[in-house]
Amino acid sequence: MASSINDVRYELALASRMLANESVLDAFGHVSLRHPSDPERYLLPRSRSPQLIEPSDVLEYTLDSAPVKPSADKLFAERVIHGCIYQARPDVMAVCHHHAPAVMPFCVAGVPLVPVIHVAAIMGETVPFWDQRDEFGDTNLLVVKQEEGRSLARALGPHSAVLMRRHGATVVGGNVRELVFRSIAMCQNAESQMRALAMGNLSTLTPGETKLAAASNLSPNPLARTWEYWTARAQSARR
Amino acid sequence: MASSINDVRYELALASRMLANESVLDAFGHVSLRHPSDPERYLLPRSRSPQLIEPSDVLEYTLDSAPVKPSADKLFAERVIHGCIYQARPDVMAVCHHHAPAVMPFCVAGVPLVPVIHVAAIMGETVPFWDQRDEFGDTNLLVVKQEEGRSLARALGPHSAVLMRRHGATVVGGNVRELVFRSIAMCQNAESQMRALAMGNLSTLTPGETKLAAASNLSPNPLARTWEYWTARAQSARR
Amino acid sequence: MASSINDVRYELALASRMLANESVLDAFGHVSLRHPSDPERYLLPRSRSPQLIEPSDVLEYTLDSAPVKPSADKLFAERVIHGCIYQARPDVMAVCHHHAPAVMPFCVAGVPLVPVIHVAAIMGETVPFWDQRDEFGDTNLLVVKQEEGRSLARALGPHSAVLMRRHGATVVGGNVRELVFRSIAMCQNAESQMRALAMGNLSTLTPGETKLAAASNLSPNPLARTWEYWTARAQSARR
Amino acid sequence: MASSINDVRYELALASRMLANESVLDAFGHVSLRHPSDPERYLLPRSRSPQLIEPSDVLEYTLDSAPVKPSADKLFAERVIHGCIYQARPDVMAVCHHHAPAVMPFCVAGVPLVPVIHVAAIMGETVPFWDQRDEFGDTNLLVVKQEEGRSLARALGPHSAVLMRRHGATVVGGNVRELVFRSIAMCQNAESQMRALAMGNLSTLTPGETKLAAASNLSPNPLARTWEYWTARAQSARR
Repeated sequence: MASSINDVRYELALASRMLANESVLDAFGHVSLRHPSDPERYLLPRSRSPQLIEPSDVLEYTLDSAPVKPSADKLFAERVIHGCIYQARPDVMAVCHHHAPAVMPFCVAGVPLVPVIHVAAIMGETVPFWDQRDEFGDTNLLVVKQEEGRSLARALGPHSAVLMRRHGATVVGGNVRELVFRSIAMCQNAESQMRALAMGNLSTLTPGETKLAAASNLSPNPLARTWEYWTARAQSARR
Repeated sequence: MASSINDVRYELALASRMLANESVLDAFGHVSLRHPSDPERYLLPRSRSPQLIEPSDVLEYTLDSAPVKPSADKLFAERVIHGCIYQARPDVMAVCHHHAPAVMPFCVAGVPLVPVIHVAAIMGETVPFWDQRDEFGDTNLLVVKQEEGRSLARALGPHSAVLMRRHGATVVGGNVRELVFRSIAMCQNAESQMRALAMGNLSTLTPGETKLAAASNLSPNPLARTWEYWTARAQSARR
Repeated sequence: MASSINDVRYELALASRMLANESVLDAFGHVSLRHPSDPERYLLPRSRSPQLIEPSDVLEYTLDSAPVKPSADKLFAERVIHGCIYQARPDVMAVCHHHAPAVMPFCVAGVPLVPVIHVAAIMGETVPFWDQRDEFGDTNLLVVKQEEGRSLARALGPHSAVLMRRHGATVVGGNVRELVFRSIAMCQNAESQMRALAMGNLSTLTPGETKLAAASNLSPNPLARTWEYWTARAQSARR
Repeated sequence: MASSINDVRYELALASRMLANESVLDAFGHVSLRHPSDPERYLLPRSRSPQLIEPSDVLEYTLDSAPVKPSADKLFAERVIHGCIYQARPDVMAVCHHHAPAVMPFCVAGVPLVPVIHVAAIMGETVPFWDQRDEFGDTNLLVVKQEEGRSLARALGPHSAVLMRRHGATVVGGNVRELVFRSIAMCQNAESQMRALAMGNLSTLTPGETKLAAASNLSPNPLARTWEYWTARAQSARR
């Protein structure tokens, strides 16, 4: 068990560094994992840029986003994003909140992100929008209150990701490898969609293709291949 | 002979790493070479991201895309792309299937890629489209059945590359150096074409210029120069 | 005290290298800091590209932009940008003048930069323009005369940054960490704004959101996190 | 004298590597320098990608582009570009022919490149176009015949650069530092011009500003600063 928790801490630090190395995360953004043996808890690093996360930076939280042990560390202000989604979605085991440059223009323009390339079918047919302004008026745009987190979780609904207007994106996964793959593929889709839009002609995957391609992309073989690849890149960038 | 096969394995691993290093291949995509002494066989790595391929990862297949020796390794699901093209095109000695970000917007928008810069004349006057949907309806967009591979090979016809709608591209070559050069030049052409289109004015090579420029680009001198350059870059990125 | 000045020299060299490493500064551009104990002086490196600045390159100037000690070093021609702003704005402790590729298109097109993403709220609701041509006719576009520097400082007014038509940007901060964060966030905003404009739909932060998000972004926690992150990246790029 | 020639060989190899490192040159393109003591000769590397050039790769040519000493090395097919310009323009001491991705869209679209940012004033008010097709009909687009080189030199006229339709650019300088600075600044201008055009509003430098800014940019201080910077970057990329 102890070793299992240590493995999860290591995996969480690695996922953070991978997503930073692939330009999904930058100075900001964070990744969490549900506790492997206690579904009422989740693991999230202390407040630190993702590229610098070490396994020892990982803290344990209840689903109310209170630290399990008192800590002198700075905590992420937006940890309710994670807690509220783990409460609302028992199937979710991993969450990433980011401000990737590929996705931000969609958050600014309010143009829906739709699957246009088969690797990105794993983001699902629909990526809903959430606008903090609708329910909460003028805020600092950080998701810090329980009701803000719950509102975001409601907007996410049964989907795999949600775009937060003028702020960023939150992506979920059934496990850490799926989360990393989906976060990166969504950025690739965003780039292709923007450039195709600029050429004036957008052709999307059908709902049937989206479902079939998502299933094959999330099978063990592609998940193992992408994990090995992004791990190797993150480690080589680190040396 | 043994040394010849070892040379080809090494060349295939190197070509995979080169194309990954030049942003043609990423977590996905694959390169194959026809067997140097048996035209009824081809060489393709086990399922692994191209940047990580080692000579020892290379497996041997019949043109039906069955492994010659039983293998415990994971195999690429889309190997029929390679087998079906080697069957249909005796002149082809090398195949690359990729999802390069430069080319994807054309696959999404359905805008034809046309030669606009002289180095890209080697992609040929016409790069046909193939839409898996036309013949096979809703699929997971992977080319895994023999009839899918044969359909793609028919769309390729006598050309040097084919764009697969919402999926990627497949490029062929008379040898590995030509394949690498064509794959990279096609991405450069795509970037210039998109940006020229955005400025509202596209001027293309004439059919005569395309033929003449392709012939000079594929002469030994440019093939040796590009191979030396991309090799040096791939090796220096690796250290 | 001596150690304090040495710390500031080190901080200034580090900020220069950070901003070069994050593509805000290139061969040109410069960062200055107000003297920590004498508000009538400021610190600015000798004429050298920011990525190469060492603490020993830092010189001391009066607010008239005259070197405090005679120096054989080449001096930046545009140091009046710094001197005139420190004169006009007692609250400003740090200044960066740059030609970042993300911001230049706005300087060329004359399209106002407006906050569209919450991290960039720290650039403020308004980034005014300054056109040297208006007051001084045809010049070499360098800000070298006291009256040019004063004119630019007037255009900046109470704001946090000013865009200089066909030239670049000048950004100010209450301390060095704020300056670095604001300079980088402004580039991120510019990228997202341009791409959202290309999709045809721009939605901006409200004045209230801008004020609230700026306040939370400039609190100690985000300033410490970004400084740690960009420092680590600059140092790892240097090895 | 011998040491002087060795210095020039070293400078030419370094300029080639710098321009490759700054994404002006890639697998193709080349830089030459006029012979320091014999204006009827010029120095150009053997056929090799610019990032790999060593001082020992540098060969000597007459202005007819014949090698001074018989050589077993492969020679650049397009060396008449250099010879014909040195013949037509006694003031030119350095020539770069490139296919930089920033400039290619202008060569494809036929949209004139105009100075929009002050660092790029050194490219001059006008960058003429040359279309090999006009005088020579269908060719392979390489400039290999004396009459092709002379035609290109006529199109260049008294200017500092010429855009070759669907092919690339040729840039000249009064010395190697000026050439390197102009080649890089022209790419920066191209990027800003394209992005400003996409925002729908292009404002250019006046002829007077262009002349004044060019003069100040080409003074010793900026030339020394840029040379130091791009040298440091090229050397650090090499390690």
